[in-house]
Amino acid sequence: MRNLVAHKSCFLVLLLLLLFTSQFSSATKKTLNRDQPCKRFVLYFHDILFGGNDVANATSAAVANETGLGNFKFGKLFVFDDPMTKDKNYLSPAVARAQGFYFYDMKSDYNAWFAYTLVFNSTKLKGTLNIMGADIMAAQTRDLSIVGGTGDFFMARGITTFETDTFQGAKYFRLKMDIKLYECY
Amino acid sequence: MRNLVAHKSCFLVLLLLLLFTSQFSSATKKTLNRDQPCKRFVLYFHDILFGGNDVANATSAAVANETGLGNFKFGKLFVFDDPMTKDKNYLSPAVARAQGFYFYDMKSDYNAWFAYTLVFNSTKLKGTLNIMGADIMAAQTRDLSIVGGTGDFFMARGITTFETDTFQGAKYFRLKMDIKLYECY
Amino acid sequence: MRNLVAHKSCFLVLLLLLLFTSQFSSATKKTLNRDQPCKRFVLYFHDILFGGNDVANATSAAVANETGLGNFKFGKLFVFDDPMTKDKNYLSPAVARAQGFYFYDMKSDYNAWFAYTLVFNSTKLKGTLNIMGADIMAAQTRDLSIVGGTGDFFMARGITTFETDTFQGAKYFRLKMDIKLYECY
Repeated sequence: MRNLVAHKSCFLVLLLLLLFTSQFSSATKKTLNRDQPCKRFVLYFHDILFGGNDVANATSAAVANETGLGNFKFGKLFVFDDPMTKDKNYLSPAVARAQGFYFYDMKSDYNAWFAYTLVFNSTKLKGTLNIMGADIMAAQTRDLSIVGGTGDFFMARGITTFETDTFQGAKYFRLKMDIKLYECY
Repeated sequence: MRNLVAHKSCFLVLLLLLLFTSQFSSATKKTLNRDQPCKRFVLYFHDILFGGNDVANATSAAVANETGLGNFKFGKLFVFDDPMTKDKNYLSPAVARAQGFYFYDMKSDYNAWFAYTLVFNSTKLKGTLNIMGADIMAAQTRDLSIVGGTGDFFMARGITTFETDTFQGAKYFRLKMDIKLYECY
Repeated sequence: MRNLVAHKSCFLVLLLLLLFTSQFSSATKKTLNRDQPCKRFVLYFHDILFGGNDVANATSAAVANETGLGNFKFGKLFVFDDPMTKDKNYLSPAVARAQGFYFYDMKSDYNAWFAYTLVFNSTKLKGTLNIMGADIMAAQTRDLSIVGGTGDFFMARGITTFETDTFQGAKYFRLKMDIKLYECY
């Protein structure tokens, strides 16, 4: 009888073990919940296009001309080193730089594609986040992939959501970037 | 004696526990089996190069000229917004767009490098897959990395295998893209 | 009394189970230790810029001109197909090719951004590693993200650390690339 009780207890343990096991085996899937990033912050991206004689203010420049495929600058490519600020004022202290490029890529409307690195270099935060994806300008918000990170963002992955905050012709535009990391180490 | 039996059972449980433990600790390695993608589908990529007066049909355009390093268009860079179809007919309904760029990068043969986003925007499927890698044209098939995803492809990773399906001079080419995701969430 | 002992043992097992459980649940975080890559090797990257009449030696070429934004070649973009060697001699057998592009992107100093693929094609090693990130030239060493891999590097991720080894004007430069994979499958 006592033996039986002991066995029962151990069966219970085995049962629990199996239960936990089934959870673990799909752990990599369950740990990523799109509503629960492991880190999240919002920054504003300021792009001031070089006009030829405004070196002091400009932060980006066209390196290839539009191609004539449609009327929306198809193929025009820009390299940038843009300040990232916590608020909408481009004169606020930059908490990071965004270094990379974008180009227009649609013949029937404005649409862009980005690849860039967020470079953090403060006493509080050092490291980079590498980002690429389509900036589908017709959409209110659009998601790009954070494909890797270094330093304080060692091996991070996630998603950054773009939202156009303002657009002043070809001269200046500001994007809200909602940065959500789902893999943090 | 009964006590001994109870202990034996518990030892067995501990043993099993250790066995499972060793499996879990390398779980991230074992969940990715290259023969078992968690999602797989084939799409055809159609690239119709802009010739200067065929805006209606063209889907890509050269934004930088070849450099003269060899005779295989080294450095020539193209931006594209190409339709992706389920069959080989480029007039079939596009189930996605491929938006990005490629360039030639070898002086002794044709060889290319791609970075682009697959944009899905149907009632059934919304989201993007971000892809980059070498298109080693001398190989029958070549693998590029799917480095991230958004929307219905939230945080996906995988591999896409290119195979040249047809090539009509510089005017049109079609690639078969075998898309295999190994991380699905 | 014996019953009690049996229960005690099983409680112990449960306790251990819970202990292991808490470790497992954060397994994906703990398996990546920045001091313990699952694979690591050092290669040297040799870039010989095309000057117009040195096709035989050149391995890279400018495809877009500098923009005039500052005095550090802002926007100048290069495509390369560079040999990777185990030692510093660029005439040593190439164990891989680095195929991709870089561009300068700072108006106040030299700074660059890279995206490329390491292509391995020997009897011992076949596959690719895809890499992108900022080459912050002001820093002694800088980290870029390895965002994916194929073939023998199936689904790999990691970090590659750049260190400028030598720089001969605009003609030739050599980077030490310390390649560390943290996800191996």
